[in-house]
This record gives sequence, C-alpha cells and structure tokens, in this order.
Amino acid sequence: MQNPAFFAAPEPTKVNDAPSPSAESPAKALKKRWILNAFDMASAGHVSPGLWKHPDDRSTTKHDLEYWIKLAELLERGKFNSVFIADVLGCYSVYGNSLDAATRTGAQWGVDDPMVIVSAMAAGTNNLSFGVTHSVTYDAPYALARRFSTLDHLTRGRVGFNLVTSYLDSAARNFGLEQQIEHDERYIRAHEYIEVLYKLWLSSWREDAVVLDKERDVYAEPDRIRKIHHKGKYFNVEGPSIVEPSPQGLPLLYQAGSSSSGLGFGARHAEAVFMSGPSPQKIRSQVDALRSAAAQEGRDPQSIKVLCQQLIIVDETDEKAQAKLAEYEALASREGAKVLFGGWLGQDLAEYGPDDDLREVGPPPLAGVVRGFAAIYPEVTKWTADALADKIKLGGMNKPVVGSAQIVADKLEEFVEVADIDGFNFAYAITPGSFEDIVEYLVPELQRRGVHWSDYPTREDGKPLTAREGLYGVGQEKLRDDHYAAKYRWKAGEEAPALE
Amino acid sequence: MQNPAFFAAPEPTKVNDAPSPSAESPAKALKKRWILNAFDMASAGHVSPGLWKHPDDRSTTKHDLEYWIKLAELLERGKFNSVFIADVLGCYSVYGNSLDAATRTGAQWGVDDPMVIVSAMAAGTNNLSFGVTHSVTYDAPYALARRFSTLDHLTRGRVGFNLVTSYLDSAARNFGLEQQIEHDERYIRAHEYIEVLYKLWLSSWREDAVVLDKERDVYAEPDRIRKIHHKGKYFNVEGPSIVEPSPQGLPLLYQAGSSSSGLGFGARHAEAVFMSGPSPQKIRSQVDALRSAAAQEGRDPQSIKVLCQQLIIVDETDEKAQAKLAEYEALASREGAKVLFGGWLGQDLAEYGPDDDLREVGPPPLAGVVRGFAAIYPEVTKWTADALADKIKLGGMNKPVVGSAQIVADKLEEFVEVADIDGFNFAYAITPGSFEDIVEYLVPELQRRGVHWSDYPTREDGKPLTAREGLYGVGQEKLRDDHYAAKYRWKAGEEAPALE
Repeated sequence: MQNPAFFAAPEPTKVNDAPSPSAESPAKALKKRWILNAFDMASAGHVSPGLWKHPDDRSTTKHDLEYWIKLAELLERGKFNSVFIADVLGCYSVYGNSLDAATRTGAQWGVDDPMVIVSAMAAGTNNLSFGVTHSVTYDAPYALARRFSTLDHLTRGRVGFNLVTSYLDSAARNFGLEQQIEHDERYIRAHEYIEVLYKLWLSSWREDAVVLDKERDVYAEPDRIRKIHHKGKYFNVEGPSIVEPSPQGLPLLYQAGSSSSGLGFGARHAEAVFMSGPSPQKIRSQVDALRSAAAQEGRDPQSIKVLCQQLIIVDETDEKAQAKLAEYEALASREGAKVLFGGWLGQDLAEYGPDDDLREVGPPPLAGVVRGFAAIYPEVTKWTADALADKIKLGGMNKPVVGSAQIVADKLEEFVEVADIDGFNFAYAITPGSFEDIVEYLVPELQRRGVHWSDYPTREDGKPLTAREGLYGVGQEKLRDDHYAAKYRWKAGEEAPALE
Repeated sequence: MQNPAFFAAPEPTKVNDAPSPSAESPAKALKKRWILNAFDMASAGHVSPGLWKHPDDRSTTKHDLEYWIKLAELLERGKFNSVFIADVLGCYSVYGNSLDAATRTGAQWGVDDPMVIVSAMAAGTNNLSFGVTHSVTYDAPYALARRFSTLDHLTRGRVGFNLVTSYLDSAARNFGLEQQIEHDERYIRAHEYIEVLYKLWLSSWREDAVVLDKERDVYAEPDRIRKIHHKGKYFNVEGPSIVEPSPQGLPLLYQAGSSSSGLGFGARHAEAVFMSGPSPQKIRSQVDALRSAAAQEGRDPQSIKVLCQQLIIVDETDEKAQAKLAEYEALASREGAKVLFGGWLGQDLAEYGPDDDLREVGPPPLAGVVRGFAAIYPEVTKWTADALADKIKLGGMNKPVVGSAQIVADKLEEFVEVADIDGFNFAYAITPGSFEDIVEYLVPELQRRGVHWSDYPTREDGKPLTAREGLYGVGQEKLRDDHYAAKYRWKAGEEAPALE
C-alpha cells in the first residue's frame, strides 16, 4: 500500500498566489531545463485502463520488440531523457478480493519483465536512457547488481534503476511468503540491500582494474579487485561483483516512495525521485520535506531531482485536445480504475454501494484520499466509488492536463513553479499516440520556452550521453561527490576505500 | 563440481570399428540433419582462455551490443539453430584458492548477465534462436518463469533455457550460503523448481485466455486463468504466472548435467542435452544411458537431442588450419586453463609440482580424468599439471577438430555416428573469427553432405521458426505429447488439467 496521507486533501497554501521571481523574469536562460521521461509499463495499459480498445492504441503489441524499438526512436526524436518503465510482481487482486476484474480489464495484467526489453531499445538509439523499475524485496542483491551492471555496459551508461520495495500481497505470495514484509521493515531491509549493491558496484573492482595488457598477459590486475565480505542482518554476500566496472559505475538511482520511510530512503539514496499526487501544492510540501532531508544528508538539495507523473492530452488546438479527452474517457475502464486503486491504496472499492459517499463511509485513509480529490474536482458533489474511479481512469491519481501546446505548457510551467519539481514522467492514454502528440505538439513549445533542450548535449569523446549526465550535465557520469555512496567509490589510482 | 567419472578413461568399445549402416549408405536423404549451435559466454573468453590477446579476437568488446548483434547476424547467415550462452554466478577460485589467476587471465571473469542481452540479438534476426543458461539454485521460480516467458514473447518463440544448478562454491557465497547446496539435493530441489515453472508456464493461463474482445470489453477471460497454489518442500508459489501465454508456452529446455542425478533430470525434462567428454566413445555410453532413461520416462528416445561441445579450427586448407592452431596455442593461457579446470572439476592444480604425474599423485577422481586424456593423447608421456593444462587451454575438455572443411566434416560425421548425437555446440578459439571460419568453410561442406539445412524451414504463417521447431520441425512449437510436462498444458478450449 502506498502512503494514503500523500493523497489526502491539500493543505491551504499561498504558493500559487505569490509572485515567483523566475515567472516574472523574461530571461529564457534563467529557466530551469526540465527532465522529460516517458512513463510506460510492459502491460496492455498502464494508468489508463481500458484504452487497449482504442483503434490507435498499440498497448496489446508490447510483446513485440517492434513496439519498444519504435517507442524508443520516437522518444529520442523528442529528445526525452528516458523511457521509464513501471513494474509490479503480482496481480491487482484487492478489488473484490479477486483477480477477475484485473483479467477482464487487462489492468496492468499480465506484465512482461522490463529488464530483458532494454537492450533492444538501446541498440536503436544513442542518447535516450532507460529507467527500469525493480523490486529489492524478492531478488538477491548479487543477481540484481549484475543485471544492472550488464545493462549499464550494454547501453553505454544509459540505465537507471527505480528501486521499489513492492506493495502487493499477491506478489509476496508468489515468493513463498504469506503476506508482504511489513512496510517499515521493507525499508530497513532495503537500506541494507542498497549498501550491498554499492559495495559490489563501487568498491569491489577499482575503476581501472581491467587493463588488457597484452605485453604482460594481464587481463585485469588482481590487486585492484577484492571481496566485499558483507555480513548483515538480511544479507551475506562475499563478492566481488561478477561484472567489470560499468560506464556509470552504478545505474542512475530513482526512487518513488512517499511514506516517511520512503522519503528518508530517497533523501539519502535517490538521484531522482518520482512523485504523484492530486495537486502541485500537495506535491510541494513533499518536495520541501525531501529536499530538506537531502540537505541533512549533506547533499545539495537541488541535486535530488523530482519528477511528477502527468498525463498530457495535447493537440493542435484546445478543441481537438478536448475531443480526444472525451474519446478516451468513453473507452477508459471504470472497473479497471477500481482494480488499480485497490492495488495502490490497498482499499477495496467493491465494498461500497452505489449511493455511498466515500468521504462519509470510507475508513479514514480512504475518506482522506477522496477529500483530496474533492478539492480538485469541486464539480463532483457525490463521491461514490464510481465517481472516484471516473477521476482515476485516465492517468491515475493525477488530473490530466489537456489542451493546445500553449495551454499545456502554461499549466506545466505553473506546476514546476508551484511544486518546485524538475520534470515529468509523462503517462499515456494511448501508446504511442500520447507520446507522438507530445513530440509533435508539446516538445517544440517547450523548446521555444527554453525548458527543454533543442538537442542532447554532446560529450567530447563522442560517446552517448549517460543517464546521469542527462540529469547533471556532461562530465557527471559517475556519482556526485555529495552523494552518500560516493565514499564507496574505488577510483582509478587510489587506495581502496573502507567498506563500513 | 561436474562429475569426474564422466571424464575418466573411455571404456573399451567396438563401436568405432563396426561398420555403420548409415555410413555405408550413399543416400543423402537418409542422413540425420544436425543441430548446430554456437557456444559463447558473456565474458572475455569462454573455453579458450588467453585468446583475448589475439589481434583478431573481439572477446573484450562483449560489453557492446554491436558484438552480440553482429554475431547473431553471422550465425543466421550460417543457418545456425541457436547461439547458446554459458553462464556462471561466481568466479573460478579453486585454483590456488584465490581469484587472482582468474583475474589475471580473464578466464570467464567478469561475466555479464546473458538474459538481458538476448532482445538486441532478436531484433536483428528472424530465425536464429537463443539458448540462455540460468541457474535454478539462487533465483525464485516465479521471477525466472517471468523472464523466460517475456523473452519467449519478445523473440517470438526463439528462446531456450539451459537449466543448471550451479557448481561453484564462490557463487553460493554470493547468495548468503557458506557453500553449495549438496549436489544430489540440488537436483531434488531442481525437480520441484521445474514443476513450479511448468505449472506457471503451462497451467495457469489457458492458451486462449487472452481474447482482446473489444465488443464485450474483455481483455482476457477470468475463468481461463487460475492460481497454481504450489506448496512444496522448497517452494510456495501462489501464481498465476504474471506473463500471458507465450508462443512456445515454455522455452525449449536444455540441460547439461552428466552425473546420475543430472542424467535422470535430463531424461525427464530436457528436450536437448548438452554433453562434453574426451572422446565420442565415452560420450556414446552416456548417450545410450540418457536415451534409455528417456524411454523409461515414456519418451521417444530419439526426441531427446544430444549436442556436444566442440572447438573447430577450419580454414581453406589443412595447412592453413594447422597454422591457425599453432597461432592460437601460442596465445592460449596455460594458467587460465588451470583456473577453468579448478572450477569445472573442483581440483586445485596448484597443489602439484612440476614433476608430479597426475595419474600417480592425483586423488582418484583427478587421476581418472587424466588417464582419460592420456588415452586421447598417447604422445604425451608425462601428465604434469602443465601438460594437462596445455590440452585444455584450447576448447576445454574436448580435443579440437582441426583441418580443411573436408577433414573436419569427416571427423564430425564420425563423431555423430560413434556417439549417436544430434549436433554440436561449437566453441570458439577467437570470436567471432572461429564462427566466421565455420560459416565460410564448414557450413557449405555440411550442406553439401546433407547434414545441415540449406535454409531455415519456413512456417506457413510467415512467422519466425521457433526454437522448438528448429529441433522437431515446423508445427512443433509447443511441447511434444510424450514429454513429462505435456500433462500440464491447459490447451485452448479444454478443461484445466490437474495440478498434481
């Protein structure tokens, strides 16, 4: 279950009314360059269930490599930073205590393994990165470290790792447990897990260990490789890593937890944090808390990049975009939305009747979430389960931004300003249609406004831009020095760092 | 540790002397069509350590997708069945009780994760298949089932799974264990593991569960999906599989164990068994035992395909091939060979002095293995550790076959005949050079002799040939009916089979 408090009614805030210095500034150069990711999932639909039925949707072709390769090429044309792939390890079976509705609607079910898709997308692109979600709850750290290091090699430094701890009981039951490990303990375990990863990735091979010295017949220098001998509460791992040091050393670290343990984890470990919430104001308070916690970890609070999930419906004109919205709403699945909500919030909407107002009859976490929605949609007077589902079925827990490029860009600029975020994970209604619209209509407008680069920055060595450089600029392919794990880096020519 | 008995001296046999009916037959049509795989590993060298130093070797570029994509394209030009990728989960640290020698020689160290490489190769090819080695000892069956089902989708049915139980203590120590699970117990556990895989792959979704019925707004039929509720000694897995039924239903099943538990496992589960040994005669006795055990499982003994590892050094003329052999021998690493031998056999060759004859001073398993080699190489009079390593350093435990296409083809035909095998996993000395030579010189000769197809068979629906069809012919993309797990298939339109 995600943190319900996060979705509760927004606190009163004046942020939106206060004049913002950068909003008043005409100087394009002062504007922050946004990070733009496309948000997808290896299933027939992601946060807009039911749209697999749309004649232009290609969701149901995701078993084919062609889908992924064409998507990656499209996003690279739009100069996106990354394609960011969500994931789960079980089915959404909270709704009606059954997986029937997920099956019927295809709501994030089935789900292919995103890790094995990436290399085909990498082969067809040069600068696009790949953010892959992977749970640390069920896979051994040694195997996970290996998979990501390999992908970092194969993509030439273009891989990111969205570390999640999983939130579905159905997933736990696929891995021999009766139910999930308790939420806070999952994070304690995750802290140890990522320590193991750091040691394997950064400290078991010196960055210049592989020398390929033909004269001396030496492939790699034995004294530049060591075991890590990690012995902890949850893991015993001898090491060293089985993969040679990769371009970035470790994948770009994403994280998405919005609970307090999740936030503490992100403040220490994440380079980019993914957030979603019903309003920019609500997100702002989370962002402030995150940046402040990052500062307490000794990090530049601006170095932790915050991305928000956002569905965009954009077209040549506002009218055309509104027409698309109507078209999508007609095909989106109310039942599918209830299925997803059950998984995300752990609340079963099947328990409520057609006349129940969830603000009144729901238990505290559910009622709070619905009051959050009520503040965003004042036109809805009765918040039945159906009414709630209708507000979720397109784009998930965020209100879609709809209109011409001008209108959408205005709203996004306001969003960035109010919430103090660094960019977006754009969700789709139909794929690749929603992304095609963004590339065709919105990207040029964002480029005109100076918030999106006109092209990828180029490296002097002609190699592809790495995922980390996409966030921090050319030259920053390794971890920043103010990051918690920088202490583990066994740099070329240096002594091995301590392992505790 | 692999089974040392397998490498022991060959039993006296008359097979080689007896006239073989098919050898006498001039009818090309009667000849068995061979299965040809290329044997590689995601490391700088596989069974010929040290050859990364050769100017034409591209082993050290395996971190780049270009290496794999070009290799796949080459193999498809040669109409190979598969690229077969070996794997380990730790380093070879038996030799000298240290990983230093493996590091120095680069002997199968480091090793990228083969699973995440496949999709890039699949994107550039149509009919080539991919056999991927994966251990069942350290990954959860649910996650492994998912990864292979996804690859089966992405490759359109061109994936095979080489099931191994791992043989390195160093791997065990990377996964929280002090040492490996004991050999026979690993196989008992593997039997339960694969039962779980079968249930997930074949029995949790009916083959026609996904209907994509837009009229009825039904993505998949809920009554065609079920949990598997597996509860066993080692695994509790609820299911269903998270991945929709894939083209082959399950990957083509390879297996490589040559111990008696390994043989029993292969006889029941494997569709193709990978063998290596010092002589065709020695292999023949294993093949006979395997086919006979398969028959006892109710299978057509010829339906279990046996492939042998074989390094080929072929060129335009015998002289050129012999010159290549000398060139490779000069660069191959004797120390690297000792490293690999230590991992394969669990015997530390660093314990013996330069005058020790291993047939005399070695413990029984080692002495037996060396006597096996002595029977193959009568010209070697003293079997020191160095002498043994020199016979292993090119191509591993099998003697390389060297010469013109004519000579090589003759020897391979004899090998197939004597050993009653179905094809080869061709190892390389340098890569892709050794495979280029095979495609250029040997493949046309094998095609002329009618033992290699002139092109891939084509399916009526125009889709790629699946891995299983590559073994059994067009139309056999699902498991054969005489296979143990056929009982688990939940076929379109049928009742769900029992799960025990």
